[in-house]
Amino acid sequence: MQNFRFYNPTQILFGQGQIEHLAVEILKHGRKVLFVYGKGSIKKTGIYAEVVRQLNQHAIPFVELGGVDPNPRISTVRQGAQLCREHQIDFILAVGGGSTIDCSKAIAAAALYDGDPWDFWCGKATIRHALPIGSVLTLSATGSEMNSGTVISNEETLEKTGSGGDALFPRFSILDPAYTFTVPADQTAAGVVDIMTHVYEFYFSREQFATLTDSISEMILKTCIHYGPIAIAEPQNYEARANLMWASSLALNGTIKVGKSFDGFNHLTEHALSAVYDITHGVGLAILAPYWMEYVLDAETAPALAAFARNVWDVSIADNFEAAREGIRRTRQFYTSMGMPQRLGQVGIGADRLDEIVEKAVGTRTIGSLKPLTPADIHRILVLAL
Amino acid sequence: MQNFRFYNPTQILFGQGQIEHLAVEILKHGRKVLFVYGKGSIKKTGIYAEVVRQLNQHAIPFVELGGVDPNPRISTVRQGAQLCREHQIDFILAVGGGSTIDCSKAIAAAALYDGDPWDFWCGKATIRHALPIGSVLTLSATGSEMNSGTVISNEETLEKTGSGGDALFPRFSILDPAYTFTVPADQTAAGVVDIMTHVYEFYFSREQFATLTDSISEMILKTCIHYGPIAIAEPQNYEARANLMWASSLALNGTIKVGKSFDGFNHLTEHALSAVYDITHGVGLAILAPYWMEYVLDAETAPALAAFARNVWDVSIADNFEAAREGIRRTRQFYTSMGMPQRLGQVGIGADRLDEIVEKAVGTRTIGSLKPLTPADIHRILVLAL
Repeated sequence: MQNFRFYNPTQILFGQGQIEHLAVEILKHGRKVLFVYGKGSIKKTGIYAEVVRQLNQHAIPFVELGGVDPNPRISTVRQGAQLCREHQIDFILAVGGGSTIDCSKAIAAAALYDGDPWDFWCGKATIRHALPIGSVLTLSATGSEMNSGTVISNEETLEKTGSGGDALFPRFSILDPAYTFTVPADQTAAGVVDIMTHVYEFYFSREQFATLTDSISEMILKTCIHYGPIAIAEPQNYEARANLMWASSLALNGTIKVGKSFDGFNHLTEHALSAVYDITHGVGLAILAPYWMEYVLDAETAPALAAFARNVWDVSIADNFEAAREGIRRTRQFYTSMGMPQRLGQVGIGADRLDEIVEKAVGTRTIGSLKPLTPADIHRILVLAL
Repeated sequence: MQNFRFYNPTQILFGQGQIEHLAVEILKHGRKVLFVYGKGSIKKTGIYAEVVRQLNQHAIPFVELGGVDPNPRISTVRQGAQLCREHQIDFILAVGGGSTIDCSKAIAAAALYDGDPWDFWCGKATIRHALPIGSVLTLSATGSEMNSGTVISNEETLEKTGSGGDALFPRFSILDPAYTFTVPADQTAAGVVDIMTHVYEFYFSREQFATLTDSISEMILKTCIHYGPIAIAEPQNYEARANLMWASSLALNGTIKVGKSFDGFNHLTEHALSAVYDITHGVGLAILAPYWMEYVLDAETAPALAAFARNVWDVSIADNFEAAREGIRRTRQFYTSMGMPQRLGQVGIGADRLDEIVEKAVGTRTIGSLKPLTPADIHRILVLAL
């Protein structure tokens, strides 16, 4: 069990109708709002109207920034920061999924920074200050609603990478599971895969003895496996939507990191994939993870992959290798059952740009806590996944 | 799954050697320290010397308040508040177990309050402001290191009750499992029981569908059951001490409350017991819980108690009543195996003051989320436990 720091000051307001507290929560932190949202689904569902109604009722002036992309772009961040300066914005409200929240965090940092905001993602600058932000979540997936990270894409350089800092924790996040009733099956499935893969990144590191952390990880995975198909079959099942929503927050709010280290293969590689091909993050993860598990399976990693099979998939095979293989088979089968593709070719990715993807993912570094992987290893895994 | 708010801004520094950050963390919040500790075990273990060394090295002036009792008293709170005013204290450092931390929180609130501090516990006043506090934990039990609650005893009125408020969250808590290597077997066992009973208070409420929360609760219970006996047999087993320490924080930092309500029987009744008889909290809880489970077992509660038996104790009996009874039997057996008494008579409690205990525990209220219990019910459970 590694030493760790845990810190998470985000206030969560969870459950049906919690939106009623929105204006009061905003007014604890700001007086003039940048209201950030995505491609307009919140207008269809009525959430947009409710937010506007509350802002108007409490006489909170606001400026809108709609149209945030699923892989949010640095150009939108620049545009948002400009709006903040022009309109003396002092609070940013993100209403949407992880992309909208990540974009809002990025704008919050960029608004208080004199240089070009990409500096924060390319490693030239550190995020120390940011406008306060709050979020209303409409998609269970990234966990951005309860952490201090932000992943941004640079559409000029085709890079997609993360940054973060304590200043970016949302002051509050409103999590109403009913807001995800209208999420279509494919996005629900992609969200479930994203949650599960956040767990993999820490669960599959090789520190021993973080027993409590690992068992919580297993429960989050089982929650996804149980409720994912229910949410797809019955989109308005509150129990399923509620458990998935809270799973999304717990999977990346620090709880399952404690005592563990970050493996990184899945997210680093998928970020490179979706930077180049602009595919849905969860779809890329669903394709990669089973190939990665197969590739890293060896005498040293078999116990961890067998524990995954037994404790998450209820596999009862005694041999570690066989148990591990069965766990991987069930993982892929589960993803397929939710409509996820199994191969990169199914989402239009061929062999032609694999070198570029590996370069963007890790450069020349060796990564991986479960099993160290060189750029050549990552290239091999991608070839297997073609 | 009930609606909920979750908020917990305490920063945790977990692991061996984290004490090295103590002075730096203090200086983020204050300049003059009240150093609160208990009966002197920290002098034997060297923690006292290390704290003093760091405070001196960083030229942080401090005033000491040692001798805090295991059931911390309002008179000590008054004394601490007086010290804060006399010496212009602006930060309180608690070094010890839950009693020392609870007492420090109480002093932190009392120092900024003009009336008598008991007002906060008897319901006359609400805690809105407090001096910042930090803690160095030396006993895994109460979870006070990562929450905003404080339980104080009034030695004049023989009351013991809780209060709290967001201002009381420790700004940081240093959790070094090695600091619990010297905790004797009986206190280790009492701590394990305390952790488990915090879980019961929420796990055994009857809300359905808080599936993820309930499964995390079960993992905390299994962690206690696995590592409690190891920590007793091998006091310097870091893995066991580390998992128990983190379990103590997770059991009462809000994680397992979400979506659930508070049952209350065990803590309300035990607080009354230890207010009158000054027994160890965990010992009182170990006696009460199995009798309570037996008493509340009926057709409505059998599914919850059977789930406890199956998911925590690996009982494989199909019938809910029989499974529940087996789970209760194993719970009592586990407590006994750690040296806990089974009856109130073993800790010097007879039938003579049961009315007074019930009155102090609940007055005339009916309590209980798993099964509503009248004062007469509580009296009956105490008689069964004599």
